[in-house]
Amino acid sequence: MALDIPGKDVSSALSEKIRQKVKLLEEKGITPTLRTIRAGDNPGDLSYERGAAKRCAALGIAVQNLAFPADVSREELYAAVCEANEDPSVHGVLMFRPLPARLNQDEIGNALLPQKDVDGMTDLSMSGVFTGKEVGYPPCTAQACMEILDYCGIDLSGKRTVVIGRSNVIGRPVSMLLLRRHATVTVCHTRTRDLAAEARRADILVAAAGRPRMIGADFVRPGQVVLDVGINVDENGRLCGDVDYEAVKETVSRITPVPGGVGAVTTTVLAAHVADAALRQNRGRW
Amino acid sequence: MALDIPGKDVSSALSEKIRQKVKLLEEKGITPTLRTIRAGDNPGDLSYERGAAKRCAALGIAVQNLAFPADVSREELYAAVCEANEDPSVHGVLMFRPLPARLNQDEIGNALLPQKDVDGMTDLSMSGVFTGKEVGYPPCTAQACMEILDYCGIDLSGKRTVVIGRSNVIGRPVSMLLLRRHATVTVCHTRTRDLAAEARRADILVAAAGRPRMIGADFVRPGQVVLDVGINVDENGRLCGDVDYEAVKETVSRITPVPGGVGAVTTTVLAAHVADAALRQNRGRW
Repeated sequence: MALDIPGKDVSSALSEKIRQKVKLLEEKGITPTLRTIRAGDNPGDLSYERGAAKRCAALGIAVQNLAFPADVSREELYAAVCEANEDPSVHGVLMFRPLPARLNQDEIGNALLPQKDVDGMTDLSMSGVFTGKEVGYPPCTAQACMEILDYCGIDLSGKRTVVIGRSNVIGRPVSMLLLRRHATVTVCHTRTRDLAAEARRADILVAAAGRPRMIGADFVRPGQVVLDVGINVDENGRLCGDVDYEAVKETVSRITPVPGGVGAVTTTVLAAHVADAALRQNRGRW
Repeated sequence: MALDIPGKDVSSALSEKIRQKVKLLEEKGITPTLRTIRAGDNPGDLSYERGAAKRCAALGIAVQNLAFPADVSREELYAAVCEANEDPSVHGVLMFRPLPARLNQDEIGNALLPQKDVDGMTDLSMSGVFTGKEVGYPPCTAQACMEILDYCGIDLSGKRTVVIGRSNVIGRPVSMLLLRRHATVTVCHTRTRDLAAEARRADILVAAAGRPRMIGADFVRPGQVVLDVGINVDENGRLCGDVDYEAVKETVSRITPVPGGVGAVTTTVLAAHVADAALRQNRGRW
């Protein structure tokens, strides 16, 4: 019978570390500040915006929400990014994606300075995730997986990790973060032959396929730690992960539930990145 | 008994494609041009410089070798990179690395425009390799592995590929190139438990560990294709790969020898990148 890994516990532990950084900054008269940039009123964006604002507020991090109408021009959005770059009181920037389709998201996003790119949106941040150089920050969800594993006290060195999914927002970056921590990493996807057998080999299984409950009983074995990154809505309108929780819970050792698992850690990681960015940007003042 | 994959045959096939591009460019009065930038007289650099010059010459690609003394200043090297960026007659730039230790290689290297970065040196090129976006070029050796697999007519989709080594110049980028072609990719390294067993699971095994003859008989099984990226000098001063060729040749299906395997394809890939860069940089003229 699996033990749930409660995201809120991971989040609480991480929050303690963030508070220490915020305190250090406060002593120097600096309020770590996140600016969000949104185009349109996508309900998912609005929900994340509210969640992030609440979490940041609880940690002493200021949030400035910048909202543009869905028909915002390329020039306006680009200017908003450049303005945030130049404003020393803004330490981190989160631009909600996807942008409306007519806008060149790559061009606008890449205008952001990597040191303020707290959700790993820019090409330079991606290069940092890939090469291990300190450039930018990884996407928050990928980093949330690492925080969870650290919270559980798992030494990743030499562990077999299997990541299902190869997206640029989660599959690829989490694979690189695991590799940096000396895990053996296998990246699987829709074309993988005998996916269930590959998954069963894992000590740590990261499900990031974006398909509701696709990871069933045949994908798991006793002793595994399972991170379920999926956030899907099933045919009954219920939130569910990529893992069929009911089918695997008797078998695996530990598992993150959905909701209340990885998703509950993501905004705390965002806050951690903002606090870290504020510290780095003010290094010279200590 | 394994069939050798002769690098020169792969190189010849690729050369045909390059000649077509060069011909197209010639018709427009454009000579595809590579500029190399070297600091000091490292014998390995000199040898590669000669090899690249010879190969490019045979393909109608001009090469300009820029050589600085080992005590060149940061400013001089930086200026050389910027000058190459601004010169429209230079389509590709290869800077030999490592630079002398006192120089900030990252800073100087990243000054290069990714569209002229024909050996995947810059952070932006790395991001392109990682995310699959068309930014820059992958490191030539990583791309050489792909050219070899294509030459062999291997459909990578769903194939189990195991990469031994996780360096930024070969292990990581070749893993990402394999993933982009829909292979299932496992990245192994010194910390991997039971490395030989992981290697045996591979349909395609890429040895890029940088340790002479470390891949022995217990790492292979019948049917495998083995790419040996290693270029080492053994205790008798003989060139050898990461694979113990004599120990595995009876077992595996196909293997690249050392010398005469992957290394024989690398400079041709460099030439291919220069021709491609010249075409892209002159797109508007067609």
